Amino acid sequence: MNGAAALIRTLVGGGVDVCFGNPGTSEMHFVAALDGVPEMRGVLCLFEGVATGAADGYGRMSDRPAGVLLHLGPGLANGLANLHNARRAATPLVTVVGDHAGYHKEYDTPLDSDIDALAGTVSGWVRRTARAGDVGADAADAIAAARSAPGRIATLILPADVSWSEGGEVAPPAAVAEPTAVADDVLASVADALGSGEPCALLLGGAATREPGLRAAARVAAAAGARLFCETFPARLERGAGLPPLERLPRAAEQVVQRLAGIGHLVLVGARSPVSFFAYPDRASDLVPAGCAVHTLAAGADDAVGALAELADRLGASAEVATQPLLRPALPGGELTPDAVGRVVGALLPEGAIVVDEGVTSTRQMPVPTAGAPRHDWLTLTGGAIGQGLPLATGAAVACPGRRVVSLEGDGSAMYTLSALWTQAREGLDITTVILSNRSYRILEGELRNVGAEAAGPRSRDFLELSRPDLDFVSLAAGMGVPGSRARTAEEFARQFARAIEEPGPHVIDAVLLAS
Amino acid sequence: MNGAAALIRTLVGGGVDVCFGNPGTSEMHFVAALDGVPEMRGVLCLFEGVATGAADGYGRMSDRPAGVLLHLGPGLANGLANLHNARRAATPLVTVVGDHAGYHKEYDTPLDSDIDALAGTVSGWVRRTARAGDVGADAADAIAAARSAPGRIATLILPADVSWSEGGEVAPPAAVAEPTAVADDVLASVADALGSGEPCALLLGGAATREPGLRAAARVAAAAGARLFCETFPARLERGAGLPPLERLPRAAEQVVQRLAGIGHLVLVGARSPVSFFAYPDRASDLVPAGCAVHTLAAGADDAVGALAELADRLGASAEVATQPLLRPALPGGELTPDAVGRVVGALLPEGAIVVDEGVTSTRQMPVPTAGAPRHDWLTLTGGAIGQGLPLATGAAVACPGRRVVSLEGDGSAMYTLSALWTQAREGLDITTVILSNRSYRILEGELRNVGAEAAGPRSRDFLELSRPDLDFVSLAAGMGVPGSRARTAEEFARQFARAIEEPGPHVIDAVLLAS
Repeated sequence: MNGAAALIRTLVGGGVDVCFGNPGTSEMHFVAALDGVPEMRGVLCLFEGVATGAADGYGRMSDRPAGVLLHLGPGLANGLANLHNARRAATPLVTVVGDHAGYHKEYDTPLDSDIDALAGTVSGWVRRTARAGDVGADAADAIAAARSAPGRIATLILPADVSWSEGGEVAPPAAVAEPTAVADDVLASVADALGSGEPCALLLGGAATREPGLRAAARVAAAAGARLFCETFPARLERGAGLPPLERLPRAAEQVVQRLAGIGHLVLVGARSPVSFFAYPDRASDLVPAGCAVHTLAAGADDAVGALAELADRLGASAEVATQPLLRPALPGGELTPDAVGRVVGALLPEGAIVVDEGVTSTRQMPVPTAGAPRHDWLTLTGGAIGQGLPLATGAAVACPGRRVVSLEGDGSAMYTLSALWTQAREGLDITTVILSNRSYRILEGELRNVGAEAAGPRSRDFLELSRPDLDFVSLAAGMGVPGSRARTAEEFARQFARAIEEPGPHVIDAVLLAS
Repeated sequence: MNGAAALIRTLVGGGVDVCFGNPGTSEMHFVAALDGVPEMRGVLCLFEGVATGAADGYGRMSDRPAGVLLHLGPGLANGLANLHNARRAATPLVTVVGDHAGYHKEYDTPLDSDIDALAGTVSGWVRRTARAGDVGADAADAIAAARSAPGRIATLILPADVSWSEGGEVAPPAAVAEPTAVADDVLASVADALGSGEPCALLLGGAATREPGLRAAARVAAAAGARLFCETFPARLERGAGLPPLERLPRAAEQVVQRLAGIGHLVLVGARSPVSFFAYPDRASDLVPAGCAVHTLAAGADDAVGALAELADRLGASAEVATQPLLRPALPGGELTPDAVGRVVGALLPEGAIVVDEGVTSTRQMPVPTAGAPRHDWLTLTGGAIGQGLPLATGAAVACPGRRVVSLEGDGSAMYTLSALWTQAREGLDITTVILSNRSYRILEGELRNVGAEAAGPRSRDFLELSRPDLDFVSLAAGMGVPGSRARTAEEFARQFARAIEEPGPHVIDAVLLAS
């Protein structure tokens, strides 16, 4: 068999049976080999940023890597921003980048570029396969690297002649590194801090924001009288009725400072120490209160969940924890504001929903009205590179058929990777997209003030406005085969949202927030 | 003044007075400073790939760099594919990438990434400015690097605190390196080859595809009895009635081999030696005929046009050259095929038009029916990274108000950077976009055969089809404020094209080539 066939069979054997892609000539043997391996599901995307974002969403929801098939350096470049987000989310993901045949490289033909340099900026593992006989083993190593704790992007660069040459051999799965147990002295030191009598808090991130971690953390918090926080941008937060509630740290630096005020010991569990998202003139980057001691219980490949459970036992914590009751807000009426959108979502969100949140400014308050909705997952913009939402929703829906995906999307960020809607239509995915149309890069209007540039005049403000002309998302969705509707009041939005979450396949609601 | 103001004033003083951008927080001082420098025109793009492609189009048409303002590593990543194309076109271009404040870097916050590594893959010049006092001088150096022969991308990485700090100083323009005169022995050796009596050909690229180069090359060719070729993907080819005609080399390797058969001496003038665009099993990459001697008259920073003129004089060439007569095809009727589109464009193209060609398979034959149209420029996909066309057209129109831009675009490639249409609407640009809708990645169907993967079945073919659902470009254009129409016959297309090229502002024609 040729290298491409060995690659696909090794991927499938290693549990990678979905591949999002936008291939070109150098990947044609991979594409041709799809017919021989029906276990591999190929999902066509019209832009590489959609493919990489979808693989991120798939990996977050299935805890298994998806494959991404990219065409040479430019294809990888187009997918980099969402790989950046996936890297920050520690999502397991296997990227296959086709390259020119080895003997062709010396000619520096038009599409040639430095793939290795690009791949290095986002990947935790990169390898260039030298011959067809190595493809299987390299692919098995890539999968193992991607899956090893805490999860990473593994990039395999595959020259075309390696794909098309005979001599490919399927390789069995390689060993995956499991999370590492946290050392006893670390546990003891954290237990001491929590028992100090000073105000304490746990800050959860990574694997600790899923049910086992949340339950163990809630036991610790109850035993120690500590507060429970979640990092600002969790990759996947399990929340809602029946799960322990916690506070998500806000994005705005001054609000983080307020929330953490008075805490004497802050324990990091798979999260990083709080810092400002951006730097601002005359303001500190480090947001830890003066005098607060920061303790790292678990980071990187550490077994955060195991450490929390062990800590809870050491503290003599009860096995029972308080959980969030089912508590929905009333359906709002009147003006369509971000708050009204949040209340409608909180009132109607179905059990088992997956919420993909790239609403930027418009969804900042949404954790509150949705906290008591039936159990759901909340996926956020881990790396800050906008254009993640629609692709992430696409991949989450592929990973979880039967669950409703609710994609909350800013109008500015939607325009980055809008063609994800076409893939949603093609694959018949149950995704309800809400475009929060405030017709501006609203976040930047605030940032213009934050950096001290108050004197902004009409020319600079014009650079932040998405009006002139207005974007019509109903028309844009229709152009890609996705039905849509426009809501201008809370009642209209509630009606359309209620219908859309029941209807099979994708739907776009253009929620016009002009009063916001 | 702060660093941002010094930057913009230095740019304007150095002739960089248009900036395409999609800014974020780290660029807010640049945006705020726009109000103080009305000479700088800021053009907002909804995706960075639009901004970089527009800057490429602007640079190709004005021979002056535009600025591009990008937000951190992910913003640069989104713009990389079109920077790759600009690099291959040797377009002068100044990229400004905002970064976090220097003191903020140690925290490795969500948007942090290796900007320098990304910039290095496409830039001929990269510098990270260390303090506000250096911004002006660094910007002046960037402009000089971008403009120095043969043209390149200069990337300035600008930490936010450098932008916002006081102490900025405007710098005067720095020295630009002009093209280097070609050495006498090179000229003599090429003159000998051309005088050998064997079949000879000149292959033009870079600066030699503009009128002065074309005229000098035509004199040389006439005196030496040599054939005149243009490289497959010229950055900007001046052609049409009144200019010397020449043959553009096709993309397909086997066709290049046919065209070059029998040539004994091939003289490269700003072009590279012909090689296959991709490698294919059992086929050579080098397309130069066996026994043909390749001579380089001018490459890189060499003065190709001066060398051609000197060579013409040495060969005693006449000052007069044969030029292309005005010769338009008749308007076709019946089925809308790529050939019919070509004839309509040839029949109606207005004087001074700028044709941006990203039609991929659908425009391969178009050089023939348009050869005798009134004088125009033809811009091509220099780096092979699709998604260039609509942005390139946008920048060309900004550079050349009063000239009609005709943007010939494949449906697959259009979807990469479609939001360029919004910028076209916002800026009121006179661009007629023709989407050549064959509803597939047609080029890949051929490539699947070329790489020897004939046995493709339904699952692999499905990966190359853009149907299911069909893309509706009239609806997509309307969603971004651009009027559109759909043509299904040659007559409909001719009528719509004739109207659109007269009408101010942008228009999209969805040319459905189902019979193709």
